[in-house]
Amino acid sequence: MFLGRSIRLKGYSSRLALRNPSYLWGASATRMPAYSTQVQLDPMTGEATSLPDIQPGRLEIIRNEKPIPPPPSRTLKFGHTFTDHMLTIPWNAIEGWGIPKIEPYGPFQLEPSSTVLHYAQTIFEGMKAYRDETGKVTLFRPDMNMKRMNNSAKRIALPTFDGEACLELIKELIRLDRHWIPREPGHSLYVRPTLIGTQKYIGVAPPSEALLFVICSPVGPYYPNGFKPIALYGTTEYIRAAPGGTGAYKLGVNYAPGVMPQKEAAALGYAQNLWLHGPEHYLTEVGTMNMFVVLKKEDGGFELVTPPLDGMILPGVTRDSVLTLAREHISGKNKLDQLTDNLVVSERPITMTEVKEASLSGRLVELFGAGTAAVISPVDRIGYLGEDIHIPAGEDGMGSVSRPIWKELVGRQMGSIESDWSVVVAQ
Amino acid sequence: MFLGRSIRLKGYSSRLALRNPSYLWGASATRMPAYSTQVQLDPMTGEATSLPDIQPGRLEIIRNEKPIPPPPSRTLKFGHTFTDHMLTIPWNAIEGWGIPKIEPYGPFQLEPSSTVLHYAQTIFEGMKAYRDETGKVTLFRPDMNMKRMNNSAKRIALPTFDGEACLELIKELIRLDRHWIPREPGHSLYVRPTLIGTQKYIGVAPPSEALLFVICSPVGPYYPNGFKPIALYGTTEYIRAAPGGTGAYKLGVNYAPGVMPQKEAAALGYAQNLWLHGPEHYLTEVGTMNMFVVLKKEDGGFELVTPPLDGMILPGVTRDSVLTLAREHISGKNKLDQLTDNLVVSERPITMTEVKEASLSGRLVELFGAGTAAVISPVDRIGYLGEDIHIPAGEDGMGSVSRPIWKELVGRQMGSIESDWSVVVAQ
Repeated sequence: MFLGRSIRLKGYSSRLALRNPSYLWGASATRMPAYSTQVQLDPMTGEATSLPDIQPGRLEIIRNEKPIPPPPSRTLKFGHTFTDHMLTIPWNAIEGWGIPKIEPYGPFQLEPSSTVLHYAQTIFEGMKAYRDETGKVTLFRPDMNMKRMNNSAKRIALPTFDGEACLELIKELIRLDRHWIPREPGHSLYVRPTLIGTQKYIGVAPPSEALLFVICSPVGPYYPNGFKPIALYGTTEYIRAAPGGTGAYKLGVNYAPGVMPQKEAAALGYAQNLWLHGPEHYLTEVGTMNMFVVLKKEDGGFELVTPPLDGMILPGVTRDSVLTLAREHISGKNKLDQLTDNLVVSERPITMTEVKEASLSGRLVELFGAGTAAVISPVDRIGYLGEDIHIPAGEDGMGSVSRPIWKELVGRQMGSIESDWSVVVAQ
Repeated sequence: MFLGRSIRLKGYSSRLALRNPSYLWGASATRMPAYSTQVQLDPMTGEATSLPDIQPGRLEIIRNEKPIPPPPSRTLKFGHTFTDHMLTIPWNAIEGWGIPKIEPYGPFQLEPSSTVLHYAQTIFEGMKAYRDETGKVTLFRPDMNMKRMNNSAKRIALPTFDGEACLELIKELIRLDRHWIPREPGHSLYVRPTLIGTQKYIGVAPPSEALLFVICSPVGPYYPNGFKPIALYGTTEYIRAAPGGTGAYKLGVNYAPGVMPQKEAAALGYAQNLWLHGPEHYLTEVGTMNMFVVLKKEDGGFELVTPPLDGMILPGVTRDSVLTLAREHISGKNKLDQLTDNLVVSERPITMTEVKEASLSGRLVELFGAGTAAVISPVDRIGYLGEDIHIPAGEDGMGSVSRPIWKELVGRQMGSIESDWSVVVAQ
């Protein structure tokens, strides 16, 4: 029960409508839910105890007067092209979340002293919006991204927010730029929510100002010419994460340090780093993806293994989806075509010694990365302590366990297989 | 021997002079050294093998037409006030380092897709400029900052640069804003060189564009009312660094993750985190400082201990200065008043068990942080696994080893003790 009084923040009540709803949406203007604009007061002290959260009802839309035509889909390179609009939502410690704006994509004015530029106060998410042949636009499990983004925010003392409210606004942005979503198979709109500390202060502290922004980039398939298994470098010189660190959160800080190790791996002929942990060389992640190993059991069945969420592993949406699909297949809730019934799923630590021994004894069936960008990324070789471990890969690069799971997953993402993972943004 | 040919880059030769030298410097214009503007070509392929480095001779100065009067020194809070000008030097992978500019302090135009905002591609340095009663301006060991900044850049695939050339430009900036340096004892100008990745691309890769900038902030003494020993929280839930990570580099990524643990320590009544490592709980750093322990030896003498530069410890300028002063005292090269002769210096691992046992047996003499901001920061208490370890502190908060070292260090910084650590910026 809430005991406090409440007040309306000055000037907050008058701007609940879209600035230009008729211009934008005509008669079928999308109604935004009426989120609270109220501040909670502590009944003892009269001080504000909760500040305004993100309020979709306050959205202002400033339409790009110089929209550009989306480039031909075949020319798209990941992450280089951005759509006509972006979403921005400012926050400060006094007023909470401010007026959300959808405005023309363009540069920010950022003070040189902004905390993000010095202390890496940035978190982000990667989501994909799909458009099918009928023009229907969907997002894949976006609630998980909003939840994870809030967990990330907490970890580095950035402000948290109402994920559902934020998602409403992201959908609004996608609807506005929906003509940017390529319709070709395997294509999508990559959506990048980001939250940065913008206080003008070079002290190391929770920032008193922040900016949440969302930009969108049309992308082609990760493997335009079919799967191509990659080679990994089992990295013993560098780490991605450690216990007590930040590996379980989607923070900017987990990415910059991986660039140089990736360059070094590439110079040795490997596409990505296989990140290991501890003297036992536990497998943790692959490049910027979660990872799975498939082992043949003594009884001829299969074990699908992925490292547990022990604080070092990013709780990936694709990771969770692969695990869920495999488990629902095993339980009979949702059988997958051509996937063996003799399968167990294990979230458990796995060492390079075990992988190497499985390879030598012919029990290493598959190893693959899993992430939003590539979905499933098969691996055919691991360089480890001067030797190469070879991993069988099917004709299409995939194996007998990953292939049926991938098919189901992509079907659900694209909307050709109905599921509640696919959230409709526009019909 | 250099075997390649060289060419002049188009348009580079005509702007070697300051844009407004007479306006700025009058007859006594500071001459910039004539750095090379040449690109090296590979003798076999004719391709450019080295791009232009930072060239002070190309400096352009755009004077702030609306300078503000520096605020009274007593009102200064660390890191909130910035001087009239900043230095910017752009870089890109095609042209190398571009035209350095000293221009009015103000916001950058940064694309929302800039790599720094997503992947924490940022490194920085902290330096101090002092102004004595005669008006002479000095920097303290700035060559070490330039060297470390280059090491940091390499670690996250940002461009490296000629540290001496960069330092020339920083000096120029300080000379221009020298009236901002407070003259009061213990005051200084905090100088913050920063290098960020600015490529408009949301892929994780070495950025093809970057910006080096330097801003300056006048600061008062860290302890305006004399030293005040702080309490530390021996942190076992979070880490600052790990082997194979980035603890030895001054990267933004080392800072954001420490904010939340610091808040938690503060909620428990401790000022800062004492960062520990491994199951042995090795002491590593204190907040954002290096750390030292002083132990009493069996023979009645003292041991000054600091963790070794094993890849987890930031190679601090103050850390190096403390070690050098103690070693020069021991060797007789530079005797310090009131410092015991029965002293040994150890760069070695030290565990919480050893610290706790030393405390119980009365052999724990001092524990202090060392860094640019606070110089020496005495500690009088460590919360560790539910208990408090108490550390003796002298009347002024310091101990018999740190006090004479601190006096010498501050004397050399302020210029009251002559040394080659103090580099003259302006007479």
